[in-house]
Amino acid sequence: MRFRLTPRETSFYELFASAADNILRGSQLLMELLGAEPATRVEIADRMRAAEHAGDDVTHAIFHQLNSSFITPFDREDIYRLAGALDDIMDFMEEAVDLVVLYEIDELPKGVERQIEVLGRAAELTAAAMPNLRTMDHLTEYWIEVNRLENQADRIHRKLLAHLFNGTYEAIEVMKLKQIVDVLEEAADAFEAVANTVETIAVKES
Amino acid sequence: MRFRLTPRETSFYELFASAADNILRGSQLLMELLGAEPATRVEIADRMRAAEHAGDDVTHAIFHQLNSSFITPFDREDIYRLAGALDDIMDFMEEAVDLVVLYEIDELPKGVERQIEVLGRAAELTAAAMPNLRTMDHLTEYWIEVNRLENQADRIHRKLLAHLFNGTYEAIEVMKLKQIVDVLEEAADAFEAVANTVETIAVKES
Amino acid sequence: MRFRLTPRETSFYELFASAADNILRGSQLLMELLGAEPATRVEIADRMRAAEHAGDDVTHAIFHQLNSSFITPFDREDIYRLAGALDDIMDFMEEAVDLVVLYEIDELPKGVERQIEVLGRAAELTAAAMPNLRTMDHLTEYWIEVNRLENQADRIHRKLLAHLFNGTYEAIEVMKLKQIVDVLEEAADAFEAVANTVETIAVKES
Repeated sequence: MRFRLTPRETSFYELFASAADNILRGSQLLMELLGAEPATRVEIADRMRAAEHAGDDVTHAIFHQLNSSFITPFDREDIYRLAGALDDIMDFMEEAVDLVVLYEIDELPKGVERQIEVLGRAAELTAAAMPNLRTMDHLTEYWIEVNRLENQADRIHRKLLAHLFNGTYEAIEVMKLKQIVDVLEEAADAFEAVANTVETIAVKES
Repeated sequence: MRFRLTPRETSFYELFASAADNILRGSQLLMELLGAEPATRVEIADRMRAAEHAGDDVTHAIFHQLNSSFITPFDREDIYRLAGALDDIMDFMEEAVDLVVLYEIDELPKGVERQIEVLGRAAELTAAAMPNLRTMDHLTEYWIEVNRLENQADRIHRKLLAHLFNGTYEAIEVMKLKQIVDVLEEAADAFEAVANTVETIAVKES
Repeated sequence: MRFRLTPRETSFYELFASAADNILRGSQLLMELLGAEPATRVEIADRMRAAEHAGDDVTHAIFHQLNSSFITPFDREDIYRLAGALDDIMDFMEEAVDLVVLYEIDELPKGVERQIEVLGRAAELTAAAMPNLRTMDHLTEYWIEVNRLENQADRIHRKLLAHLFNGTYEAIEVMKLKQIVDVLEEAADAFEAVANTVETIAVKES
């Protein structure tokens, strides 16, 4: 299931598109997790881990290509930041799934499905935007929409925190669930970091 | 209440000064929060949110100017880091106020007022230092003093943690209060990150 | 016990080696902590704080030298990142020891000794690798091994989380112990960040 990349023959554009496609797959696995039976969850976590390894391979290919290229299509620091933020998204999504399995969560609190929906929408937009780095088309719309989604994710996250602490849950349960909703919020922040770096690249090119 | 900036006509110096003035306003709102009634708290949180939005506008103006300027007064990476760290301070202060309202905290533990005093002092020093980036005067004193304040904040924070876990509080209450004192400590760390970046800029210029 | 550095006369290579030697000392103090009596712990925490101060001095010397040097052996951003990540390792190790004392932890959960062993191994590898920055020898083996250790640390950390939440511990105790195992995991991540930066430097030089 792992990507086999030959870095020197693959362009930065294709590598960023691979990373984003992989994130899209990850966000679909998060969605599958929502209604899944415990046995299925373990299998989803395995597929998520495979996706995260594939993401690591792409990140490593980008860094290798960056360090061995004399000429790069964008500023080196922007490529570095973009690859790092894409990698972070995948790590946070994988961690969320792993924690659900690890803590044997019976039922996720109402509101988590909205967090995951927002991540799914951000993943679609990111996967659609990466190929546009070549032409710089439609990147402003992408950037604005992901920033809007991050604000929405933030409001959902804060409502979830208020819900977790409203007295319904035992302290130990609050701790487990809080760790999961926090890591999903970190994934939303990482999507925004990707979008902000894309904006930086686009402004420099304009 | 939002800044209306026309980035191309405003210098980096003025933008950094705006960001720091805004942080100073945020730190004053934190201070007001301390003795406030529940009803007033909501209103303070609204003003804090407005200040944070104003901060976002300044940050965005700095990034836009950075990306569209051919010549910058300092290294691009230093401008990027400085703007990012100033933005972080505001985000953490806003989060602290929001959590107090969200969790309906009756009384903040003794020691939080000392955290907020240190943040207030760091905000004053930062607001006074930003205009000096133009002349590079008195930046060493500023840098040393903010580092000293961060060490002090760290000691206050660790004492607060020991206090929260001394058996007085219920587990759920510890979680809520810990999140608030942790985010205030993150604000103190972000002040230090600003000061360290200013030092970097000053050493390069000397 | 503090380093007295005269930055202008010390090479970057020597400064990075100093930082790594200091981290090695810190990891040995972590190991000593494991079986220590409460009274001895306070003394270990004092020595750890001294090591962390010595680390701060080295970090500051690196930044000062970086900012005042016209020519540097590696890209400035890589030096900046390497020094920052080495500093992070020390901060996290010091925080772990301080929390054990602060929270008056009776017994650390089984598994923490494995976290500390992995950190000790990573510290040895890092201390051995830093002097090789001059010749660029054996850095690939170092990088691969530290990445492998970080994966191992991650698995140990997740097992520890599952253990903490298995019903054996009171909620308050879980919070204290979780904070300690989390900060040790952050130290492992910081070792990986150091290794990844070294790889970046090595690839550029090849």
